[in-house]
Amino acid sequence: MSDHSGASVTPVEAFEPPYYVAVFTSVHAEERSGYGETAARMEELVKDVPGYLGMDTAQTPGGLSITVGYFRDADALTQWRSNTEHRAAQSRGRAEWYESYTLHVAKVERSHGFKRA
Amino acid sequence: MSDHSGASVTPVEAFEPPYYVAVFTSVHAEERSGYGETAARMEELVKDVPGYLGMDTAQTPGGLSITVGYFRDADALTQWRSNTEHRAAQSRGRAEWYESYTLHVAKVERSHGFKRA
Repeated sequence: MSDHSGASVTPVEAFEPPYYVAVFTSVHAEERSGYGETAARMEELVKDVPGYLGMDTAQTPGGLSITVGYFRDADALTQWRSNTEHRAAQSRGRAEWYESYTLHVAKVERSHGFKRA
Repeated sequence: MSDHSGASVTPVEAFEPPYYVAVFTSVHAEERSGYGETAARMEELVKDVPGYLGMDTAQTPGGLSITVGYFRDADALTQWRSNTEHRAAQSRGRAEWYESYTLHVAKVERSHGFKRA
């Protein structure tokens, strides 16, 4: 749900598969009152979901935002998806904050990471 | 492989599952000679892969880049992964262009899109 620019500069690591990714790509509406507070609140709230592993977010100025959430299993995603406060935020997002978005929920089959020595 | 800023401002649509996503998150090295040309070449090259569906990319200035490639099936990903020119670009990326990166390859189980009316 979040795609504000307070991004960490270390990508979330490669976990041992299987795990889940929720890929959320979006284009913002021009006017976004209240968005920042809600995004920050969602970032806090998701941390309480058992099986939540982390989040990556990037935003091209004036362009696309991509947020990827990582979850240990489908139950963790179901719990996050059904969270009441999250559902209210999604509703408000469709009504006010997004021009368009796509969500892809997928089960990771392989992963790897690289870090400069 | 690509995360330059020539991003489209429409997210790739939600396809009918199953399909695959390759989520590539990265932090750049400070010096990146030759990166832009190679990224542009990879974006052209991947279009020749049968089963390639599209790509989303976003980059927070000074922060994280995320590129998501969409593929119809595992064969399409295998073909892209084994492309000689792509492999050379990956090598050069590890040697010169990236501080760190993570790749997550995952099979999409559900997806949906939203577009403001």
